[in-house]
Amino acid sequence: MRDSIASGGVIQMSHGAGGRDMTELIERMFVTAFANPHLSGREDQAVLDLPAGRLAMSTDSYVVSPLFFPGGDIGSLAVNGTINDVAMAGAWPMAISLGLIIEEGFALSELARVIDSMAQAARAAGVPIVTGDTKVVENGKGDGLFVNTTGIGQVREGVHISATSVRPGDVVLVSGYLGDHGVAVMAERGGFDFETTIRSDCAALHGLVAALLDAVPETRMLRDPTRGGLAAVLNEIALASGIGFRIRESDLPIRAEVAGACELLGLDPLYVANEGKLVAMVPPQSASAALAALRDHPLGRDVAIIGVARADPHHFVEMETRFGGVRMVDWIAGEQLPRIC
Amino acid sequence: MRDSIASGGVIQMSHGAGGRDMTELIERMFVTAFANPHLSGREDQAVLDLPAGRLAMSTDSYVVSPLFFPGGDIGSLAVNGTINDVAMAGAWPMAISLGLIIEEGFALSELARVIDSMAQAARAAGVPIVTGDTKVVENGKGDGLFVNTTGIGQVREGVHISATSVRPGDVVLVSGYLGDHGVAVMAERGGFDFETTIRSDCAALHGLVAALLDAVPETRMLRDPTRGGLAAVLNEIALASGIGFRIRESDLPIRAEVAGACELLGLDPLYVANEGKLVAMVPPQSASAALAALRDHPLGRDVAIIGVARADPHHFVEMETRFGGVRMVDWIAGEQLPRIC
Repeated sequence: MRDSIASGGVIQMSHGAGGRDMTELIERMFVTAFANPHLSGREDQAVLDLPAGRLAMSTDSYVVSPLFFPGGDIGSLAVNGTINDVAMAGAWPMAISLGLIIEEGFALSELARVIDSMAQAARAAGVPIVTGDTKVVENGKGDGLFVNTTGIGQVREGVHISATSVRPGDVVLVSGYLGDHGVAVMAERGGFDFETTIRSDCAALHGLVAALLDAVPETRMLRDPTRGGLAAVLNEIALASGIGFRIRESDLPIRAEVAGACELLGLDPLYVANEGKLVAMVPPQSASAALAALRDHPLGRDVAIIGVARADPHHFVEMETRFGGVRMVDWIAGEQLPRIC
Repeated sequence: MRDSIASGGVIQMSHGAGGRDMTELIERMFVTAFANPHLSGREDQAVLDLPAGRLAMSTDSYVVSPLFFPGGDIGSLAVNGTINDVAMAGAWPMAISLGLIIEEGFALSELARVIDSMAQAARAAGVPIVTGDTKVVENGKGDGLFVNTTGIGQVREGVHISATSVRPGDVVLVSGYLGDHGVAVMAERGGFDFETTIRSDCAALHGLVAALLDAVPETRMLRDPTRGGLAAVLNEIALASGIGFRIRESDLPIRAEVAGACELLGLDPLYVANEGKLVAMVPPQSASAALAALRDHPLGRDVAIIGVARADPHHFVEMETRFGGVRMVDWIAGEQLPRIC
């Protein structure tokens, strides 16, 4: 396998055919990189021991373009993204499955880079990749590499996170700067007349969630604002809980460089994807405890209270602007940032 | 949504953008079709109550071409295929996640057909689709529709299925006719000068597995012979268990029509994919009980004992031919049937 990578080898249809080439790819590249006691190249499934309780399950496919960008790549994104979706249920992620759809002709060296990145992300997070599947499609029928990760995790006892449970008066926090991921990927696509040092915030947030839930087990809602950004998350939760939100523009943590890039690109940072941030909603009496718990964690240092849930029969998300006005933060219309995750 | 389908609507990039169009697609098409208490269009994950025990987890992506074929389509294939991978651990499937990668321009009417087929398959099997994700890629960067399903299920107590546990003397059974799925898909692709009435055997096998395990809890190994067919399964298990196999050509259940089509197509039915069959390996003293248990189930009526595991330091799979000779059944070399599942 190392020889094939070094000599410029590429994925062939036979790597997805169920025969010797596929077995070699799985054993020599995947099983080696992900090394853990659950994973075997020789079983079609993993078996895990679980205590009784509530299990969270979440799936995401990743089609980000380009595959590599400042601060991450499709591999780390897929591992961390699914860890985060599981964690947002108030769960501790325990295992991830991996489905690859590879385009014929994709460089083995790029595949190895992605797999290494996934393995590193999984190890750093302490969440094993326990089972997988590889498919190959003909050249021209894919786009290099698509990745699906599905995660399961145990929901913490006594914790009940739900989009439907937010109440008027609940306080809204974001764990740090908004828009970094989307701007980093857009900048990497090129074709723009600016340079940026912005890196994706891609990170696994289960530790941050645990720190918050230790301090504030009564947390009402958690969501990572990925596709559609903060605006999509607030609108979805408003609809689900039958409430509205009022946020304050001046309290939103947005880097000057991200704000500047968004202006140049004609984007609104409220709609730009994040991959290492969470939105938390907590009862008002828990707001300061939540703020402190998040701030004490390395991934929550730049946390901010940005607004409040309100009774609103229209389920509007409104923002007090810097200039003292109020504007609607509507759902994204059409499509702002294709293939950002 | 119904209006968009009826008026020839197609998938647009905005259906994957995290905004209103995506929410509408999810709520009006997916949540409606899959209706079950776990699934919500408003949470990023499902939460399930589980007893303590062993959990099996398996993932598969489906890139079959064409999407619709006699006896099934990518939707029923994805649901049944993942149910089967979970069931082959000796587990009862409990939940499935669904990841869709859709090409811009894909007809909403075709998507609705696939989703209805998934919903029907899930209901028929009693396994809910509990969470999902939708991505859209630009026209020309995909191939209509790719589907990932990941399944979890509870492993039956006292049952220990593993590719490594087969012993010399163990008896090999297949639950019915081989090669139907692969031939049905190949015939549907067209370009051949023959017609066939062969239909895919696509089916959920968890009930069949349960019937077998009720009678023979000591079953050593189960595997559904999909990509690479029976030949791949036997070679993988031979390698994993450090044994060999000897099968008998005259005992292989293969329809005359499938054998004929394979001859015309230059295929060997031993390498052709199945989607509703299982290979079981049991200790010799349990063989007749296994045969009876499988035969009593509607999906196992054509079960056959086809061979035996043997001590073999080379881990060869050999076949006694109809003509009294012995030939090697090697791993598939190269690629015989692209995008068959």
